[in-house]
Amino acid sequence: MIKQWIPEEKPQKNELKKRLEAVQKKLADQQMLIKEHKLPVIVLLEGWGAAGKGSAIGSMIQNIDPRFFKVVSMSEPTQEERRKPFLYRYFVSIPEAGKFVFLDSGWADEVTGQRARGELKKRDYEDRIESIKRFERQLTDNGYLLVKFFFHISEKEQKKRLEKLENVKDTSWRVNEWDKWQNRHYNECLDVFDRYLSDTNVPGTPWYIVDAGDRKWARLQVLETLCSGIDIALENKKLASPLLQNVFPLADMPRLSEIPLDKSLTDKEYKAQLKQLQSRLGALHYRLYRKKIPVVIAYEGWDAAGKGGNIKRIAGALDPRGYEVHPIASPEPHEKARHYLWRFWNRLPKTGHIAIFDRTWYGRVMVERLEGFCSRNDWQRAYNEINEFEMELSKWGAVIIKFWVQIDKDTQLQRFEERQKTPEKQWKITEEDWRNREKWDDYETAVDEMLQKTSTVYAPWHILESVDKKYARIKALQIVVNTLEEAIDRQNKK
Amino acid sequence: MIKQWIPEEKPQKNELKKRLEAVQKKLADQQMLIKEHKLPVIVLLEGWGAAGKGSAIGSMIQNIDPRFFKVVSMSEPTQEERRKPFLYRYFVSIPEAGKFVFLDSGWADEVTGQRARGELKKRDYEDRIESIKRFERQLTDNGYLLVKFFFHISEKEQKKRLEKLENVKDTSWRVNEWDKWQNRHYNECLDVFDRYLSDTNVPGTPWYIVDAGDRKWARLQVLETLCSGIDIALENKKLASPLLQNVFPLADMPRLSEIPLDKSLTDKEYKAQLKQLQSRLGALHYRLYRKKIPVVIAYEGWDAAGKGGNIKRIAGALDPRGYEVHPIASPEPHEKARHYLWRFWNRLPKTGHIAIFDRTWYGRVMVERLEGFCSRNDWQRAYNEINEFEMELSKWGAVIIKFWVQIDKDTQLQRFEERQKTPEKQWKITEEDWRNREKWDDYETAVDEMLQKTSTVYAPWHILESVDKKYARIKALQIVVNTLEEAIDRQNKK
Repeated sequence: MIKQWIPEEKPQKNELKKRLEAVQKKLADQQMLIKEHKLPVIVLLEGWGAAGKGSAIGSMIQNIDPRFFKVVSMSEPTQEERRKPFLYRYFVSIPEAGKFVFLDSGWADEVTGQRARGELKKRDYEDRIESIKRFERQLTDNGYLLVKFFFHISEKEQKKRLEKLENVKDTSWRVNEWDKWQNRHYNECLDVFDRYLSDTNVPGTPWYIVDAGDRKWARLQVLETLCSGIDIALENKKLASPLLQNVFPLADMPRLSEIPLDKSLTDKEYKAQLKQLQSRLGALHYRLYRKKIPVVIAYEGWDAAGKGGNIKRIAGALDPRGYEVHPIASPEPHEKARHYLWRFWNRLPKTGHIAIFDRTWYGRVMVERLEGFCSRNDWQRAYNEINEFEMELSKWGAVIIKFWVQIDKDTQLQRFEERQKTPEKQWKITEEDWRNREKWDDYETAVDEMLQKTSTVYAPWHILESVDKKYARIKALQIVVNTLEEAIDRQNKK
Repeated sequence: MIKQWIPEEKPQKNELKKRLEAVQKKLADQQMLIKEHKLPVIVLLEGWGAAGKGSAIGSMIQNIDPRFFKVVSMSEPTQEERRKPFLYRYFVSIPEAGKFVFLDSGWADEVTGQRARGELKKRDYEDRIESIKRFERQLTDNGYLLVKFFFHISEKEQKKRLEKLENVKDTSWRVNEWDKWQNRHYNECLDVFDRYLSDTNVPGTPWYIVDAGDRKWARLQVLETLCSGIDIALENKKLASPLLQNVFPLADMPRLSEIPLDKSLTDKEYKAQLKQLQSRLGALHYRLYRKKIPVVIAYEGWDAAGKGGNIKRIAGALDPRGYEVHPIASPEPHEKARHYLWRFWNRLPKTGHIAIFDRTWYGRVMVERLEGFCSRNDWQRAYNEINEFEMELSKWGAVIIKFWVQIDKDTQLQRFEERQKTPEKQWKITEEDWRNREKWDDYETAVDEMLQKTSTVYAPWHILESVDKKYARIKALQIVVNTLEEAIDRQNKK
C-alpha cells in the first residue's frame, strides 16, 4: 500500500500557513461538538521512528482543552502487560465519550515490529491481524471514531533524523533500538509495514499515509484528515451498525423451560463430595499458577438462585492470593462512558490467576436489553461482540467457564419471602428484585436467546440446576475441576 | 520487640475449635456493621516467609461476602511501580469505606527486606520509617482501621516448611529467593524485623505478633485480634482525631488583600518573552526526562482567574508524550469512598514526567471546608496531611510548583458576564460559579489560611497576579523554568 502510494503535492508556504490556521481553529470548534454529541475519538499515530509523530500530536492538542484529551505513549509492554492479552493495554486506554485519546504508536507498531524482527510466526501474525480487525470494528460499531495515520519518511531522511537526535545529549534517549533497527533494515520493514497496512485497510477504519518529510506539511495533513473524519463521524452518529452473522462454532443448548429441576443431593453425599472436590480444586490451582494458565469463571442466573453461595464453594478451595471475585453492579459514570466491555477488560486476570465474575458482560443482552439502557441495534450486535471477546480470551490461553444458575419462579418467590423475613438477609433483597421478577417472561426469552447464541465450543454455558443449592454447588465444582484438568492435560501435550 | 515477646499458651484442641467457630461467626456478623458504618479495614499480614500468611487470609475471608473484600498480594515492585514513590502501590490499594483489603506482605516486608539485604542505608531506612508512620497515622486519622500482624516462626520451623514446599513441584514456585535468604540469615533478619517492629509500634497502629508455629492456632489469634479491633474501631468511629502541630519549614506568604494587582505587560513584551521562555522550557523538559526528575505543577485560583489559558502556555511548550494535565472535578463515587488524597496518588507522574493539576488536593481546605463536605476536624487536620503528602513527593525527588491565580472580585464579575455573552464560552460558566462568587469573603479567609499553612520551603505557593492574563502567564513560565533549572543544577552537583 505504501509502495503504490503517491504523496499529494506540498502547498506553498503561505498557503500552508493559512490552511494550518484554519484547521487549527476548526478543531478547536469541533471539540465542543464532540463533547455535545458524546463522540469518543481515538487518533492512532503509527509509522517510522523519528517521523514526527510527537510533533504532530503537539499540533493537534494545541487548541484542545486538557479536560477533553489524553496522550498515551506506548512503548514495549511492561512485565504486567505481558501477563494480559495482547490487546489489553490498548483496550483499557480507550477514551470516554466526548473525549480524545492520542496514541503515540499502538497495535500496528507492536505487531509489525515483532513480525519484522522475526518474533512472530506467520500464523500468529495472521491471528493478530484478525484480532485487530475485530477490535477496530467493535470500536467503530460502538460509536468510536478511530483515525489511523501512518507517518512515512524515506530511508535517507530517517537516517538523517536519527543521527541528529543521537548527537545531542538531551535528545539521544529518544532514539531506541527499534528505531535504529528499522533504519538498518529499511526495506524489510517497508515490506512488513506495507503488508500490514493492506491487511488492515478496511472501510470503517482506513489508513491515511502521511508524507512526513516536512513537519509542517505533515501536521497539516494530519489535522485536515482528523477534522474531516470528525465531520463525517458526527454526521453518521445516529446510524445503526450492521449486524454480522454469528459464525462461531456453537454448542447445542436446551431452552430454560425444558430443564428438569428435580435434581438433589443428600447432606451426606454433599459433604463427602464437597470435601473431595475442593481438595482437588485446591491442588489444581497451584498447577494452573505454575503453568500460567488464566481462568475466567462467569456467573449469571436469576435473583436468589444461589450464585453467591455457589461462588463461595469454588473460592473457598482456592489460594486467596491467586484469585479475585468481581461482583458486577451497574457501571460507574466513567465506565458507562466507554465501550461496555471496557470494565471487563480492566478486570481480566493475569496469567496463572482466576477471575470469578458475579454477573458479567451478559448484562448487555439481559438487563440492558430489557430496561432499554442500550439501543436494539446495540444488544443485537452484542452476541457477536461477546463471542469475539471470549474468543480473544480463549486465543490468549484462558479457560472460560460460564454458569447459568437456574431456578423456577416459585422457588424464587419462596426465597425472596424468606430473605424479607430474616433480618440478616434483608439487605440482599431490594425493590428492584421485585420489579425484575415481574418481567420474568421477558427475561426468560432474553436468556434463551443468549444461551443459544453465545454457547461457543471455546466458552460454553453450563446450566446449574439450583432448586437444591447443594446439587448446584457440587455440579459447579465438578465442571470447574474437569475443565481445568483438561486444560492442564492439553498444555502438557503441547 | 519480637525478642522479648512471650507467646500466649495455645488452647486445647476442643477449645480451639470452639473459639474458631465462634470468631468466624462473629466476623461474618461484623461485615454488615462495617458496611453500615462505612468503616474501611486494612489487614496487613507481615512476617517470615512460609509462616502461613496465605492460609490465615483464607480463614478470614471464608465468611466475608466477595463484594466486601479484596486480597492484594505484594511482591517485588514492578518496573512501573519503581518509577513512583515507594508508598504509591500501597496507597492506591487502600479499600473503599465499608470494605476490607487483606495485604499479603506490605511496606514492612519491602523495607525490612531491603534493609536486611543491605540495599537501604541507615539514613534512608530512617526516612522510610518516618514515611510509614505518617502514612499509617493518616489512614487512622481518616477513619481507616489498620490491623498489623507479624507472623513469627522459628528458624527450624521455617527451614522445615521451606524444604517441604520446595520438594513438591506444584508448590516449589511459592518459595522465593527472599524466603531462602531469610532462613540462611535468620538471626540478622530477626534483628532487622525486631527493630522495625519497635520503630513502628505506635498507639494507633500497634503490632500483633502471631505465634505461627501451628496453623490453626495462628488463625485463631488473627481472627480474634481482628474482631476485637473492629469492635473498638466501630465504637470510636465518631471520635475526632487529634490535630498535630504543623512543624514544617514554612515560607512567608502575604494575605490576598495585600497583593497589588496592577501588573501588566504590553503585547510586544508578552510575545517576545513567551517565545523565549517556551523554547527554554521545551529544552528543559528533555533534560528532566533524561535525569528522571518527576514534576508536579498545581493550579488553584478564583473561577475565571485564567487557570486554563495559563496551563495551556506551559503545556504548549512540552512534549505531549511526557506530561499530562489532570482537570480535577468533584470526586466520582469510588474516589469519594476513599482517603481524599487517594485520587491524587493515583495521578502521580512517573519519574521524568510532568503532571499538571487544574485544581488539586487543596479542595479539602477550600470547597470541602466551605460546603461542609467534610467535618471541621477533617479540614483542620488536612493542612498537616497535605504538607506531609507533598513532603513525601519531595523526598521522592519531585519538583513541586504551586500556583494561586489571583484576581479581584470586579474582574471576576466582568469575566463572568463576558462568558455569558459569548456563545462558545457559555459552557465555561455555571450556576455553581455564581453561587461560589457569593461566598467570596469566606473563600478569601480559607485561601489566606491555606497559603499561610501550606507554603513549605519544599513546595511553596506562588501568586500569579492575573488581572492581566499575559503578565500571569509569563510569570508562571519564569517560575517553572527557574525552578526546573535549579532542580537540574542540584542534581548535577550530586
